[in-house]
Amino acid sequence: MTDGSADRLDDAFHVFDTTLRDGAQREGINLTVADKLTIARHLDDFGVGFIEGGWPGANPRDTEFFARAATELDLRHAQLVAFGATRRAGGRAADDPQLAALVDSGAPVVTLVAKSHDRHVELALRTTLEENLEMVRDSVSFLRSRDRRVFVDCEHFFDGYRANREYALAVVRAAHEAGADVVVLCDTNGGMLPSGVREITADVLASTGARLGVHAQDDTGCAVANTLAAVDAGATHVQCTANGYGERVGNANLFPVVGALETKYDRRVLPAGRLPEMTRISHAIAEVVNLTPSTHQPYVGVSAFAHKAGLHASAIKVDPDLYQHIDPERVGNTMRMLVSDMAGRASIELKGRELGYDLSTDRDLAGRVVARVKERELAGYTYEAADASFELLLRDEVHGRPARFFSLESWRTISEQGPGTTAGNEATVKVWAHGERMIATGEGNGPVDALDRALRTALERIYPQLVKLELTDYKVRILEGQHGTGSKTRVLIESTDGTASWSTVGVADNVVAASWVALQDAYTYGLLRAGLQPED
Amino acid sequence: MTDGSADRLDDAFHVFDTTLRDGAQREGINLTVADKLTIARHLDDFGVGFIEGGWPGANPRDTEFFARAATELDLRHAQLVAFGATRRAGGRAADDPQLAALVDSGAPVVTLVAKSHDRHVELALRTTLEENLEMVRDSVSFLRSRDRRVFVDCEHFFDGYRANREYALAVVRAAHEAGADVVVLCDTNGGMLPSGVREITADVLASTGARLGVHAQDDTGCAVANTLAAVDAGATHVQCTANGYGERVGNANLFPVVGALETKYDRRVLPAGRLPEMTRISHAIAEVVNLTPSTHQPYVGVSAFAHKAGLHASAIKVDPDLYQHIDPERVGNTMRMLVSDMAGRASIELKGRELGYDLSTDRDLAGRVVARVKERELAGYTYEAADASFELLLRDEVHGRPARFFSLESWRTISEQGPGTTAGNEATVKVWAHGERMIATGEGNGPVDALDRALRTALERIYPQLVKLELTDYKVRILEGQHGTGSKTRVLIESTDGTASWSTVGVADNVVAASWVALQDAYTYGLLRAGLQPED
Repeated sequence: MTDGSADRLDDAFHVFDTTLRDGAQREGINLTVADKLTIARHLDDFGVGFIEGGWPGANPRDTEFFARAATELDLRHAQLVAFGATRRAGGRAADDPQLAALVDSGAPVVTLVAKSHDRHVELALRTTLEENLEMVRDSVSFLRSRDRRVFVDCEHFFDGYRANREYALAVVRAAHEAGADVVVLCDTNGGMLPSGVREITADVLASTGARLGVHAQDDTGCAVANTLAAVDAGATHVQCTANGYGERVGNANLFPVVGALETKYDRRVLPAGRLPEMTRISHAIAEVVNLTPSTHQPYVGVSAFAHKAGLHASAIKVDPDLYQHIDPERVGNTMRMLVSDMAGRASIELKGRELGYDLSTDRDLAGRVVARVKERELAGYTYEAADASFELLLRDEVHGRPARFFSLESWRTISEQGPGTTAGNEATVKVWAHGERMIATGEGNGPVDALDRALRTALERIYPQLVKLELTDYKVRILEGQHGTGSKTRVLIESTDGTASWSTVGVADNVVAASWVALQDAYTYGLLRAGLQPED
Repeated sequence: MTDGSADRLDDAFHVFDTTLRDGAQREGINLTVADKLTIARHLDDFGVGFIEGGWPGANPRDTEFFARAATELDLRHAQLVAFGATRRAGGRAADDPQLAALVDSGAPVVTLVAKSHDRHVELALRTTLEENLEMVRDSVSFLRSRDRRVFVDCEHFFDGYRANREYALAVVRAAHEAGADVVVLCDTNGGMLPSGVREITADVLASTGARLGVHAQDDTGCAVANTLAAVDAGATHVQCTANGYGERVGNANLFPVVGALETKYDRRVLPAGRLPEMTRISHAIAEVVNLTPSTHQPYVGVSAFAHKAGLHASAIKVDPDLYQHIDPERVGNTMRMLVSDMAGRASIELKGRELGYDLSTDRDLAGRVVARVKERELAGYTYEAADASFELLLRDEVHGRPARFFSLESWRTISEQGPGTTAGNEATVKVWAHGERMIATGEGNGPVDALDRALRTALERIYPQLVKLELTDYKVRILEGQHGTGSKTRVLIESTDGTASWSTVGVADNVVAASWVALQDAYTYGLLRAGLQPED
């Protein structure tokens, strides 16, 4: 990498983010102005060159965003971009209130969307092909005369090119000749495949000489590849969204596009030192938009460098590069070994190392852990999604006895629905801790919730640390689904103490008994984390 | 499309599915043998040509799968494939127990994984490059001598080609010359981009003349595009997994690969009439593996053809093709206008017709059904996976009152674990039918099992038809997983009367109450099916 002091890249290649405009079209995303400012800060921190903030004038929220951005955003790497459309058919750009709003936004760069598909001009704009060209020329010239840098998004470009190549090229030329710095070829309906994008982009570049960009939607699952195909053909401007958010299936995902350009093309498209922030920033933006980060996202998902197969684990010990396409640290991610019955001793050793136990010196111990995992997984347990239960299992083998903070005498749950009432649940537990017998009853939404409350009540005098412990997720899976409700049940519980979170597993014939096992592990792990010593 | 009677395609192009083997490597997936059989049936129903079922001999579960598949799977389109590795270094294929297990599995096709990257041969296999070639030749010849069709997966092929092209090609030639029908180029670490895949595949084809396949992992977010790039270069065999399940980020997703081949390449890779089953089968497989179907999956996600109103709305009314890359009905999906219930009414009319109710003549009725479905889905119900509950809802609206064979006074379940005993469950129900009050108690593996037995006991004198009714599957999903065990619970129950099977759904704060709702629907539907008239 190069000079860390260069905060802004040169203009040779544009990483252009449109999370705040096109990304916000995703079903289920609804951003406040404060959300948009926070996301803009994350994107700037990541090091994109351009942040498209919205359509000033189109709705009050976007107008307010630009107003507040002017005073509240202190961008280090990025320039802010306002999005709008070419002027109205039959009017003059200088009189167009929508173009005036773009200028008033104060953004130094404007993206103008223009029609480039002949049928859309006729059916959606309801004007002539020639007037549409004039709208492009007039609007670009107007914004250039106001000292704005202009990019033109050619909507439906690829479909338009296939329907009427000459007209699509005429729109590109009109934008280019009027002073647009970049003409962006948009696959608005997302139906393209990389071979077509590459071929068409190469032809447009050769035919017009305009600087080209690409904007891909992911309807064929190829948006990242389509973006790279355009770059292969000479595009030097890529429009993406964080985590691929966008309408329908979504947009080209910023992170794998940047990941490929930096690590596969060895092209410097981010300021020095920013690539390792990628995983953190992807997750932070997911938090702001209130969507669970995709565990399986390329480069940045928690599973992106997770290995399960035993076959691989022994080779990974020899050389991790044999089994991963890049060093995960380059993008701020980490390798994880998953424990499952496909795993052998090698992956258990690696997992132990991750948790701070050196199993490599004691082959017997590692062998016992492998045997115990296989036996428990055969019984229906799964440890790859229950790190804390695995750590307790490992700890038990290392210490030769289970960590125990309390022991069970009995539990009972009652769920009932009487005439004319809604269903209610209560649970009673009888447990022993520090030589005392404790009995408590709890009520809850469902028998397991009631059981959790009862256990908490029983123990919190002796273990006040439990006040901070909270169950945050609860999953039930019925195994061997061929015997109806008589099947075996697996429960996964996620817990937190406000700082860390952990997962535990329980399996039994019965959902309540399985939950008890997972609850017991959750409490035990939480108390160990709080620094307490278990009873003997 | 062509002749609908052709259930098997010719051999010119292979759609090869490895959900059950490579897909099962995904973090969080843990399949039982029953799950694997169910998924195989769905894949066969979809029309893939090959289903890789697992590695017989490597673990007891896969061995059992092949044993049960031989008697329990009646495949219409697909052939079953066993996966294994080339023989041990220094041994003989004819003496290799692992190869013997492949033959014993009874699968007519075997995929053999072979090393094709020189460093992996040396570091992971710890043998010589020449011995590895001999292992390929000997293993393929052995399986051919046992009348098995053989495909060879060249692991780490693309990385190996870049490290040592001549050696990688030598492995392909060895497999081809020994009688492998297809040599599959695997991007095992998933770091490739389409341009590299296309170039290398073309060179391998020209240099060896072998029939080529491709197996892509999605670590760059390009697995679908990489698969298509290999096809562009002449590969005629694609290895994919349903919903892209697989290790780390995942594998090439079967559905967008098939979607592109059928709709963009106009290539017939599925038997006639199967493409419209794509959306349903994608969701059904997600249910079996107990993962929420991705809403944003290309072609099959519920958002894949969803349009936010605004700019596009009027144009979509003029011509929907202006704003969607294919007609969603081609893949069994539907366009959704997020502000309009028109699409909803149309699909409910279709569904009604399927169930024998003509709703097209009564727009009010169809509107009431749409409104009721929307309201219930908002509350957490899902009718996609609960046909019988939907049919009861429809029937209720048509008849103006619910079908009722019994009414509830109260139920109660008790689960308890006493000192030194295993957990037990009992349930008591008090119900009315034919003017009589019935009280019964049942015991079971879990509170819901106990509830089912109690209800059955209470009703079977009046409804002896219930003897044939059996619950065959039971699934629990916790909705809104941010409140721990206090969340809302959705239960899906599958029932059978020995002839047909049906699914019902219940939602409540509480797993037992939700189960009661689904049970009630299951019994009601079963009694209607038995030809009984409900009480007034």
